[in-house]
Amino acid sequence: MLTIEFDGTAYHGWQSQTNAITVQDVVTAAVNRLTGESCSLSGSSRTDAGVHALGFVCNFQTSSSIPEDKFAYALNTLLPEDVAVRESREVSPEFHSRFSARGKTYRYLIHNSQFPSALLRHRAYHVYYPLDVSAMQKAAGHFVGTHDFCAFSATGGSVKTSVRTISQITVDKREANQLELNISGDGFLYNMVRIIAGTLIEVGFGKLKPDDIPEIIGSLDRRKAGRTAPAHGLYLVEVYY
Amino acid sequence: MLTIEFDGTAYHGWQSQTNAITVQDVVTAAVNRLTGESCSLSGSSRTDAGVHALGFVCNFQTSSSIPEDKFAYALNTLLPEDVAVRESREVSPEFHSRFSARGKTYRYLIHNSQFPSALLRHRAYHVYYPLDVSAMQKAAGHFVGTHDFCAFSATGGSVKTSVRTISQITVDKREANQLELNISGDGFLYNMVRIIAGTLIEVGFGKLKPDDIPEIIGSLDRRKAGRTAPAHGLYLVEVYY
Repeated sequence: MLTIEFDGTAYHGWQSQTNAITVQDVVTAAVNRLTGESCSLSGSSRTDAGVHALGFVCNFQTSSSIPEDKFAYALNTLLPEDVAVRESREVSPEFHSRFSARGKTYRYLIHNSQFPSALLRHRAYHVYYPLDVSAMQKAAGHFVGTHDFCAFSATGGSVKTSVRTISQITVDKREANQLELNISGDGFLYNMVRIIAGTLIEVGFGKLKPDDIPEIIGSLDRRKAGRTAPAHGLYLVEVYY
Repeated sequence: MLTIEFDGTAYHGWQSQTNAITVQDVVTAAVNRLTGESCSLSGSSRTDAGVHALGFVCNFQTSSSIPEDKFAYALNTLLPEDVAVRESREVSPEFHSRFSARGKTYRYLIHNSQFPSALLRHRAYHVYYPLDVSAMQKAAGHFVGTHDFCAFSATGGSVKTSVRTISQITVDKREANQLELNISGDGFLYNMVRIIAGTLIEVGFGKLKPDDIPEIIGSLDRRKAGRTAPAHGLYLVEVYY
């Protein structure tokens, strides 16, 4: 099992695909070069192009005799600078980084200012108009709990049920006009965090009221929720097992 | 007067030079395109290749009728994404962003971890070995005051005196293994902040003791101080007038 940080700017997400370079491609290449094997990597989530990760998890089987904790050091010498292994350890053969996951935390970073930020240009969504943070905090509370999040899901997901449990959402002001949204739950539908972020931004503008959220959830109608916030503000922070 | 944020990664510092692209080049090009004039820009400091800025200041003369505060918005549409104007305003003809400056604040960011950070790779200096933060804080206090900082200056500066006053240094732990050094003073010699950062890092390793600092300052000998910490951890935060 590897825990990976990556800057998603240059990648078309985690999952390998034709005609585009992905994080899975570069990690697989490093693992195969290190082990001399032809390993198949499973990832904890797909992640869209441009999305970042602080703690993405993947796993693979190997017969290598390299000690479990040494993989991290060795792989970092073989990986490009925008992908870094933070931890490596042996797990049981039954472990699967996606199916064994009990929950995840995502972060959505907003830069709320009249002016763009050079340093955050690929790291936060730049929102020009002032946001009402306390309205966003109040709205965020309505997401907590077990709901059918169909209204907060893009088409294209292939899941049996759209019922998910959100255990916590926080909206916090950070220095330099940054607004940090952290959201934890047992699982997330396709684009769910980005649609929740986009909806909270519309609450911040005053286009939606905090108390509109239960009705939007209840509608099960994607058109009632806000826009999908862009990928480059999103971070996969941690996967829980 | 323009206040500028820039990501220094792609630039050879502020100052125009032959055969390399600089921040001054791209800001001058945007100003000239906007005004239709051929303006000459003065900057608050030179800054080395790779150094970042949150509040770099520059000034120029123009006969443009564009309102003072509108320059920022208009220039941001003409600048590359890694350079952003945060403020524009009219100043007196005597104003010079370098010679009128009364002081500056710099930041030096350290990522202290066994593992590299993909997201901070151009934004913080990665230090593998654990740093003793309280020793560094104690050492930092010795820099405060008016001293001849000759031992903390690279050759190549063209200044009359190497006496400078440091009003404040702070060393703070931030989330995710980040260590933030903030340093304010009336002016800084060439590479002074990077040499102070490098010296504090050697205190953090235990190679130097906090109480060695006064002797190093007193020696006026560059060889007694620590190494010059790399450019990509340095930020010009603010210039005071």
